[in-house]
Amino acid sequence: MIRSADNDKLKTIRKLQQKHWREKLGLFAAEGEDLVQAARRAGWDPEFVLRAGEDVEPRLLAAVSVLGSGSRVIGVYGERWSEPHGSLAVYLHGVEDPGNVGSVIRSAHGLCDGPVILGPACADPFSPKAVRASMGSVFARPPARAGFAELGGTRLALDPCAPRSIADVAEELAQAADARRGAPASGAGHAPEAATGPVILCLGAEREGLPAEVLEGVDAAARIPLRGDGPDSLNVAMAATVALYEVANRMAAHA
Amino acid sequence: MIRSADNDKLKTIRKLQQKHWREKLGLFAAEGEDLVQAARRAGWDPEFVLRAGEDVEPRLLAAVSVLGSGSRVIGVYGERWSEPHGSLAVYLHGVEDPGNVGSVIRSAHGLCDGPVILGPACADPFSPKAVRASMGSVFARPPARAGFAELGGTRLALDPCAPRSIADVAEELAQAADARRGAPASGAGHAPEAATGPVILCLGAEREGLPAEVLEGVDAAARIPLRGDGPDSLNVAMAATVALYEVANRMAAHA
Repeated sequence: MIRSADNDKLKTIRKLQQKHWREKLGLFAAEGEDLVQAARRAGWDPEFVLRAGEDVEPRLLAAVSVLGSGSRVIGVYGERWSEPHGSLAVYLHGVEDPGNVGSVIRSAHGLCDGPVILGPACADPFSPKAVRASMGSVFARPPARAGFAELGGTRLALDPCAPRSIADVAEELAQAADARRGAPASGAGHAPEAATGPVILCLGAEREGLPAEVLEGVDAAARIPLRGDGPDSLNVAMAATVALYEVANRMAAHA
Repeated sequence: MIRSADNDKLKTIRKLQQKHWREKLGLFAAEGEDLVQAARRAGWDPEFVLRAGEDVEPRLLAAVSVLGSGSRVIGVYGERWSEPHGSLAVYLHGVEDPGNVGSVIRSAHGLCDGPVILGPACADPFSPKAVRASMGSVFARPPARAGFAELGGTRLALDPCAPRSIADVAEELAQAADARRGAPASGAGHAPEAATGPVILCLGAEREGLPAEVLEGVDAAARIPLRGDGPDSLNVAMAATVALYEVANRMAAHA
């Protein structure tokens, strides 16, 4: 039972609130029973787990918690990154809000088979806020890291200014995949030349959107149609989730 | 030019960080040029607006800001609530996270014609975090307040345990609306008895979901299909947005 704040494990947990320590140690912390359970279900072995009243005095664990209410359990894990894979994935460029990054990791885990690929200037997916927003999906579907130029497959930009809707573009991509498999395309769509390999949805920062070099490099672009009297765009995590839902459904209907 | 922290307007802004002061005064604050602009575009007259360097010393305005970086402009407005209206709206029950409430207000503004209706135990939509997450949509589409029992129309629960998908249920509702208009229903669906009036999507808290009395009272229930190896559910704001997207699209296709 840890009875002193001057304990190496407690000091490690406190350090891991800071990005430079997470990067230096290659570790991150997950607070609460739900996240520790999610790690276990995903087959992750922790570096260590501290439980209030079992391994450590409750007030000492609460003192290193990032949650206002304190935590009864905190696990520390080695960071894991995946490589881009799967038939549908998400690429984020400059998405700085950790809650949005975590939420997209959760949505991707629910809606597609590929990871969230983090490009430049994204929030750290192993920060406390991102891990919490992922609700444990960061364990089940570790994110990948890549620059836009490294992405293969069909890169589809979500862009509020694109002329075509995500439904139309997703339908065309699904029919193109059909055609490549030799199946009869259902409908009048035709296969765009570029529609090969996995589909990678590309989304940019909340305000700036995707930079010009990405918008010029993608194979297709689409928007989520919004009401004329509505906002210019949805929150980036909402947009990613709607697009994943639409593209995954169209791909499944043609599979 | 305000040169003292002991100024009534500055003191009001500081008070409005607290819910009981917002309720007592019926006012809330919006920080940043984007939100003040959104208010103006939506035709709201502020109680007052303070601009750093014009109306107030920058350091004094920064001191009453809730943003880490401080704000160059803060507007104070009277709270406005709407009544439930429109052909598609969202009812939230026990959604305590202000970021989620604000994000759903933004999504509803983009995807449907009705407001977000806040039931019991929801976050205050006029809190700084909710107003910011709404990106100004709280001005364009003020939320409503109502208990579940007061809701008319077709109440559709989003429930991860529901047997039917949101796409199937949305299609059926749209066809039922067609049938009421005397238009030929396109497809084999039939009109459920209950499908009258506006559609109100009902969502519950992140963890507990909708309470039994709501689940038993709704006219239909649907889930967003997720991968078998995925999470149990999406974040509530993501789920609301996907469902709004799906239902609005089906209703538009049949209109």
